Amino acid sequence: MSKISGIAASAGIAVARAFILEHPDYTITKTAISDIDAEVAKLNDALAKSKAELQVIKERTLAELGEKKAEIFESHLLILEDPELISPVTDKIREESVNADYALNVIATQFIEMFENMKSAYLQERAADMRDVTKRVLNHLLGIHYVSPAEISEEVIVIAQDLTPSDTAQLNRKFVKGFTTNIGGRTSHSAIMARSLEIPAVVGTKDVLSKVKTGDLVIVDGLNGDVLINPSEAEVAEYISKQKAYDLQIAEWKKLRDEPTVSADGKHVELAANIGTPNDVNGVIENGGEGVGLYRTEFLYMGRDKLPSEEIQYNAYRTVLENMKGKPVVVRTLDIGGDKELPYLELPKEMNPFLGFRAIRLCLDRQDIFRTQLRALLRASVHGDLRIMFPMIAVLSEFRAARDLLLEEKAKLKEEGIEVSDNIQLGIMVEIPSTAVLADQFAKEVDFFSIGTNDLIQYTMAADRMNERVSYLYQPYNPAILRLVKMVIDAAHAEGKWTGMCGEMAGDTTAIPLLLGLGLDEFSMSATSILPARSQISKLSAADMKDLAAKALQLGTAEEVAVLVQSIGN
Amino acid sequence: MSKISGIAASAGIAVARAFILEHPDYTITKTAISDIDAEVAKLNDALAKSKAELQVIKERTLAELGEKKAEIFESHLLILEDPELISPVTDKIREESVNADYALNVIATQFIEMFENMKSAYLQERAADMRDVTKRVLNHLLGIHYVSPAEISEEVIVIAQDLTPSDTAQLNRKFVKGFTTNIGGRTSHSAIMARSLEIPAVVGTKDVLSKVKTGDLVIVDGLNGDVLINPSEAEVAEYISKQKAYDLQIAEWKKLRDEPTVSADGKHVELAANIGTPNDVNGVIENGGEGVGLYRTEFLYMGRDKLPSEEIQYNAYRTVLENMKGKPVVVRTLDIGGDKELPYLELPKEMNPFLGFRAIRLCLDRQDIFRTQLRALLRASVHGDLRIMFPMIAVLSEFRAARDLLLEEKAKLKEEGIEVSDNIQLGIMVEIPSTAVLADQFAKEVDFFSIGTNDLIQYTMAADRMNERVSYLYQPYNPAILRLVKMVIDAAHAEGKWTGMCGEMAGDTTAIPLLLGLGLDEFSMSATSILPARSQISKLSAADMKDLAAKALQLGTAEEVAVLVQSIGN
Repeated sequence: MSKISGIAASAGIAVARAFILEHPDYTITKTAISDIDAEVAKLNDALAKSKAELQVIKERTLAELGEKKAEIFESHLLILEDPELISPVTDKIREESVNADYALNVIATQFIEMFENMKSAYLQERAADMRDVTKRVLNHLLGIHYVSPAEISEEVIVIAQDLTPSDTAQLNRKFVKGFTTNIGGRTSHSAIMARSLEIPAVVGTKDVLSKVKTGDLVIVDGLNGDVLINPSEAEVAEYISKQKAYDLQIAEWKKLRDEPTVSADGKHVELAANIGTPNDVNGVIENGGEGVGLYRTEFLYMGRDKLPSEEIQYNAYRTVLENMKGKPVVVRTLDIGGDKELPYLELPKEMNPFLGFRAIRLCLDRQDIFRTQLRALLRASVHGDLRIMFPMIAVLSEFRAARDLLLEEKAKLKEEGIEVSDNIQLGIMVEIPSTAVLADQFAKEVDFFSIGTNDLIQYTMAADRMNERVSYLYQPYNPAILRLVKMVIDAAHAEGKWTGMCGEMAGDTTAIPLLLGLGLDEFSMSATSILPARSQISKLSAADMKDLAAKALQLGTAEEVAVLVQSIGN
Repeated sequence: MSKISGIAASAGIAVARAFILEHPDYTITKTAISDIDAEVAKLNDALAKSKAELQVIKERTLAELGEKKAEIFESHLLILEDPELISPVTDKIREESVNADYALNVIATQFIEMFENMKSAYLQERAADMRDVTKRVLNHLLGIHYVSPAEISEEVIVIAQDLTPSDTAQLNRKFVKGFTTNIGGRTSHSAIMARSLEIPAVVGTKDVLSKVKTGDLVIVDGLNGDVLINPSEAEVAEYISKQKAYDLQIAEWKKLRDEPTVSADGKHVELAANIGTPNDVNGVIENGGEGVGLYRTEFLYMGRDKLPSEEIQYNAYRTVLENMKGKPVVVRTLDIGGDKELPYLELPKEMNPFLGFRAIRLCLDRQDIFRTQLRALLRASVHGDLRIMFPMIAVLSEFRAARDLLLEEKAKLKEEGIEVSDNIQLGIMVEIPSTAVLADQFAKEVDFFSIGTNDLIQYTMAADRMNERVSYLYQPYNPAILRLVKMVIDAAHAEGKWTGMCGEMAGDTTAIPLLLGLGLDEFSMSATSILPARSQISKLSAADMKDLAAKALQLGTAEEVAVLVQSIGN
């Protein structure tokens, strides 16, 4: 047995055989072929095998995951049957006496490049399909045994260097019991995805990939961040009992689903969820969310070839508000630009996108985009308790300009005879240091604050949180961060306003005692973190946590703060 | 007459004819040539004309600027006489029947690419020479009339889109009386260069280039940020008298050269200068600097193909300390990485270099580089009043690690019998929000702070100061910035330490009353700003400025602060 430590990215324990997810080497060499008929036959054989495989995968996907997911494989089958792709390959083999894999690769690459250069996002995505299908046929031609994550059909633990968004989209929760990767951190894409799928995961192990081979028995302990390779029977038994204990704890947590969130000494706070699409509302309800603390509207703008219409947006916002049944829904207006690109906006490349033209900065400039979103939100406001917040507000004039545009659109709608709620709370994200420092001035004008710690930490520490070389500076418990959080909360309370937090920190078990102590009113987190957080808060005394936070504010380093919090036990 | 407004980037008034600095279009088309001998003759003619030109420029440069500057043109002449370049061009014309400009461009590009791929920084620079020479010959072949900034030989005002570092390096102060550009701000490279050369300049005019043609009479008013095109005789007279008044003011300021800096009510502060090389010390003395508040050591590491040795560094530091004759010299340890590249370090490209692996982050990782610099500094410490400061400190552990390395090297030197001063003050740059917010904790361990406003502002506002689209957020007078400055100063004073400022803000006439009021101890600025600042401070009451600053801290926007400061008059 060997044990590797990494970062606990998603809670729970999984025991299963390892499945190594590696992207094979498709280096192709041009070779002169003498027996041309045999080469064409080889191609046809590979095509037939690929089709047979896809047929099986398609049917299994249809049965297990439904029609929508199966459609991908149907379109792959259509590509394989398309004479426009296959004839040129056969012709090339015959005319140039070259090997089938070379001929296929040249022709397929031409198609892929053609699709990639299309203006339409739909056609650009066809490039990905073409790439997948080509790889499948090449596997047969080159004798590569590769199984894509979508084809996993037995219970496994996926082991990989990292999981790309396309890998995670293909993971089947029924079979993938857990995963572990060499790289990544708690806020990396794969970690967030694991928590949303409720799959145990350990990331950032550095070298798990070199230590495990397919078929090894593996335990992923997403509670402590450990990975055990080929454990003894006794160890397996021990972890299965840990797993059962965790399941029991989950069951305990589930009992809190319809309870309010109250500290041991009777202080109420609100636990809300961060969501990205209307579909996520189910998870919020299931996990006892008291509201939506952050609805990221970016997804509405992605995967399209043009801006979403007012109608598309209105329907999405209305669906969320209706399904939340009167509970508060905080919608963040578009936070795009910088690193989050929308190809159809054709934004200029920037030297430092995190310090660039994004979010409200872009929206105040591109009022056509912003006004459409504001109108859709205003129209949806009558269907629930809508709260609107603007991202990346750095100066008061930005908030005022955004608010004025909202009021203008509201007046126009009323003039058009369209009903708009008069009780929409209007707030801002506090994710830029200047706004935290000047929170007392902002508090006079906004209805609420929501602290976005992911960005606030990276700007306050001047460290890109995606850059591994400076990741040691991404310190949520740094006393400087806690002081800024306190400034914001105190400023809001002085004006009778409330403060929420919608960064990863709000669901972090080490941060929760401090945030309770600092007086945070609303904690917004991954839906799956809500019940554990409610349980944790029910055992904490808000008065004691106030003293704890006061002590933390006077410490010098994040390490000292972590030690202080550990001293109270969790 | 027409008048354009821009940003006053360098004080003073200049009146002269316009010189348009535009980089010509070198688009080259391949053409089939029938009369080959004529084409070769055309090439030879262009080469001869280029040589004749270079000979004249070389001699003029030798006479006016000395041997060192003339060497560049000598090496250009050598390139033109190199058969390795010229024969292949002639061959290409003859063998392929192509036009001379096309043949020259192909061959020269090959050489340029070869040089650019060389490991040696010296050979890489030859690529720039080759590019310059090729353009000169192409000017003759293509009939382009282009005069490089180095060749200006009559009094002019340079008009350009922007000035690159290579353009400004070629400007001859004797002939270039002022300049004005379409883009840039007060902290852009060209603006800083203009202040250092003491040339009046107006930048960021947006469209001066389209409104002026070569030979137009132009007035550049670097005091108010105005550019007048083809002014009337009366206007010329008016500005010449303004220029004289300004010269008189300069003469007044010069009288303050050896005076201390004292406010009207008797408060002493220190005015120091920012320098980049030992040569800059002359300017500090001439302008009455009471010390060096920031010695940027990066230049020692640039324009080389390897790291500077301990000896090279020791000599530079010693020279500065000796020439400052016992006045304090604050040396900032290496701030490289991020956007400031050193090719020989082969640092990885980063997504957000301003939030990346730079300065102390790099130095703590690359101790080989850092220890060499610390040893050189320690050895030089016996030659004056050396103070060392570390850049980009975000957390206490970084300061402690850097200090410990310094103490280790000090102990080693003493063991080797080398003398080291025991009175070296050790401080940090405060340019990251976390450090400003936690200044009380830092103040217990450091000897002094120096606030680096250029970076502190961009991180606090989360806005890249080089990015035009978010430049409206680069707000030195934002109350959030003033509050952070106050936190730092108060924290230092509570521990009996001092605080300086070495960003552009320290020399800004609008900021000075506020900084005096906030209790700043040392102002470090461009040497040429020292005397005007001393004069300004002598007329201000520190007690009144304290009240002014207190009011500013309670305002909501930078605009309100600017209005408040204007209300006192300057």
